[in-house]
Amino acid sequence: MYDFDVLVLGSGPGGQKAAIASSKLGREVAVVERRHMIGGVCINTGTIPSKTLREAVLYLTGMSQREMYGQSYRLKDDITVADLAARTQHVIGREVDVIRNQLSRNRIRLLTGTARFRDPHTFLIADDAGRESTVTAEKIVIAAGTRPARPDSVDFDDRTIVDSDGIINLERVPRSMVVVGAGVIGIEYASMFAALGTKVTVVERRDRMLEFCDLEVIEALKYHLRDLAATFRFGEEVASVERHASGAIAVLDSGKRIAADTVMYSAGRQGMADELDLDKAGLEADERGRIRVDENFRTAVPHIYAVGDIIGFPALASTSMEQGRLAAHHACDEPAHAMHQLQPIGIYTIPEISFVGRTEDELTQLRIPFEVGIARYRELARGQIIGDSYGMLKLLVSPEDRRLLGVHVFGTGATELVHIGQAVMGCDGTVDFLVDTVFNYPTLAESYKVAALDAMNKMRHIARLND
Amino acid sequence: MYDFDVLVLGSGPGGQKAAIASSKLGREVAVVERRHMIGGVCINTGTIPSKTLREAVLYLTGMSQREMYGQSYRLKDDITVADLAARTQHVIGREVDVIRNQLSRNRIRLLTGTARFRDPHTFLIADDAGRESTVTAEKIVIAAGTRPARPDSVDFDDRTIVDSDGIINLERVPRSMVVVGAGVIGIEYASMFAALGTKVTVVERRDRMLEFCDLEVIEALKYHLRDLAATFRFGEEVASVERHASGAIAVLDSGKRIAADTVMYSAGRQGMADELDLDKAGLEADERGRIRVDENFRTAVPHIYAVGDIIGFPALASTSMEQGRLAAHHACDEPAHAMHQLQPIGIYTIPEISFVGRTEDELTQLRIPFEVGIARYRELARGQIIGDSYGMLKLLVSPEDRRLLGVHVFGTGATELVHIGQAVMGCDGTVDFLVDTVFNYPTLAESYKVAALDAMNKMRHIARLND
Repeated sequence: MYDFDVLVLGSGPGGQKAAIASSKLGREVAVVERRHMIGGVCINTGTIPSKTLREAVLYLTGMSQREMYGQSYRLKDDITVADLAARTQHVIGREVDVIRNQLSRNRIRLLTGTARFRDPHTFLIADDAGRESTVTAEKIVIAAGTRPARPDSVDFDDRTIVDSDGIINLERVPRSMVVVGAGVIGIEYASMFAALGTKVTVVERRDRMLEFCDLEVIEALKYHLRDLAATFRFGEEVASVERHASGAIAVLDSGKRIAADTVMYSAGRQGMADELDLDKAGLEADERGRIRVDENFRTAVPHIYAVGDIIGFPALASTSMEQGRLAAHHACDEPAHAMHQLQPIGIYTIPEISFVGRTEDELTQLRIPFEVGIARYRELARGQIIGDSYGMLKLLVSPEDRRLLGVHVFGTGATELVHIGQAVMGCDGTVDFLVDTVFNYPTLAESYKVAALDAMNKMRHIARLND
Repeated sequence: MYDFDVLVLGSGPGGQKAAIASSKLGREVAVVERRHMIGGVCINTGTIPSKTLREAVLYLTGMSQREMYGQSYRLKDDITVADLAARTQHVIGREVDVIRNQLSRNRIRLLTGTARFRDPHTFLIADDAGRESTVTAEKIVIAAGTRPARPDSVDFDDRTIVDSDGIINLERVPRSMVVVGAGVIGIEYASMFAALGTKVTVVERRDRMLEFCDLEVIEALKYHLRDLAATFRFGEEVASVERHASGAIAVLDSGKRIAADTVMYSAGRQGMADELDLDKAGLEADERGRIRVDENFRTAVPHIYAVGDIIGFPALASTSMEQGRLAAHHACDEPAHAMHQLQPIGIYTIPEISFVGRTEDELTQLRIPFEVGIARYRELARGQIIGDSYGMLKLLVSPEDRRLLGVHVFGTGATELVHIGQAVMGCDGTVDFLVDTVFNYPTLAESYKVAALDAMNKMRHIARLND
């Protein structure tokens, strides 16, 4: 007889959903989490602080109102970290409350401390004072997450040279910043600080960034960031960082020297598997601290599952939740649909990006023909009302069966709007549905109809010439 | 030989789309409009000014930020009509530009003046100076719109006693206001002024308001408006309004006297058909100035169509556009799909309301069983980030085939979000699609998944008890 039916390591999005789903299926469930990490990296240092910071930046800089009140409009001239952080701490506090409530409402035990395997069904849990206790469980879900990878060659001090978890604890808004690594996290912070007036330089080893996104969208993003005084150094590496009394100098391989108040490394993340004594469960992690799973999120040991960032790509809160739910269903022998193929990508840059389905480049490589339909927010009444003059929505439509092959959105509300197209794709609708649909006026959702009509007119033009 | 293939009377949403669609189908097209009314009531005195005003109210009052910065937070303490109107004039100007560009890009002639029939194919067009010219057309689309109905008994002065077109020209924000009529327009303005700090009293003849909406949503709206110091007088009528030097007193049938700086009548709208000399075309209007049409928007005279507010319900910009497009296709002998049955309703109150499909009351009357799934914004990370603690999304799901019967949204972004559910309904998806879908995190769109899981858990509970 075990202490629990299901034990979940970690209370981030994947862990929460695994625990709640198991409990709803009638199991006795416990979650292990460190005292100040309820909600995991997502709530405490990652997604939530960064998205809340972004909302505060948008509001306090008056960015979203400049079209209306003039290009030099600023709600608050001297934005301090305190202004930004007040809101962040508030939201973190409330999100932690929500999670605690959800866990207790579902009668899930919360065990405080860090856990390591003693054998395949037993954990040693150490609390803050170092006291250890033992807990056993029939099924285990590992959702222990990741931490920022810190290159050995870099001398992090959490003040001048920081990683992406440390950036939210800066004492003041830097006047200048070097961002090393143009991945999602790097570019999200680069765009927030650029919006705050920081002179940002992004250094990226590769020749382009976010190459899984639509090229036109990424070029529009670069254009907007440059307009906010950001500089890009692609195909370059940071050789070393010299720390000085009032800042740092990043020295590139090419010999360039860039002075900055702050250097932020955003060089990938490391799985937490190395802290779990996996070998005692008969498991092992790869060199990046990650655990391999099958399509049901089951590890090599049949009663142990792993979900979330610790299993690697795509490492998004949205997909981790779904993984947690599916792993729990499998562990509890309850049927569940496989995760939907259409996984949206949302990037909270300024402006924001989201897409679902294929990109133009992918379709061209696959030799799948497509027609493009575009809507620009500035041609929509809603775009005028909110003063978004650059937003756009692009539909990629199959001229053969008129299905949507991809939906790409850039601008206000992109991460929300993409789900309209996702629903059409996921329910096997065609572009005709969007042409025939009545949308509320004035909304940004109307961009679907405008883009659908654009694609339709192009296809009709070709059909006419063929006649 | 006619001067034009298609002549459109009016440049509002219906007229624009009729003209553009006809032009794209290769026809010679002209639109007749008064000099300062490009875009019709929608752009100049109706939808656009009211929605822009609403956006300015939300921003300048700091309403949307109070959850975060405290209940007494106000961005600007003394909001003047100039603050509100600057933005409105700006948006109207740009929207008029957009329409002019769209018309000229599509080579549509814009004829300035007012038009009346001389015979079924000929119009007299009078310009501002009273000069008349004659224009002929093969097909005609009447999209001449409406004006506010003004009861004869009321002494409108456009300062103290105004209609819904005059409200945007007030010289100052009134300290108190009586709104007569709790229809969509009345309640939208009531909520804006209540948000601005005006003490609003709504007087409505019937016992309830917006009865086509979800009852729970309307009760939540009333709760929020009362929280902003609004008073409702249902089942009461205004017998007379006494005008005084510094305000007015509305006297109700019940004898109550309500003092107010401003009295706004929102007592329905009157079709413009009485100004068109319809009899010369062999047509007639009803007593409310409206024209009857068939399912193809064709009047009793086969080459004359009518669309938009002038044909009555639902009289929304969104549906008028679709009517214009469909009328043009029919007039140009081009096939078009009939308008989609799923027409969303969007009401730009504060908070905002939108729905598609059936209400609980309708389903109960029709004896169609349903299960309810609810998501509250405050349980979503995005809800916390934007500080919307009251928003909710409600799904009505058929327990028989798991299809969505209705989607009701209350709160931030309601008019945009409803279209995700509309797409699922319109493409024949089921609640399972929403359960299995991965949504971007953090978004309000996630409320679909939360509500879908809620409905699913209830249905599963019933299924278990049945076993």
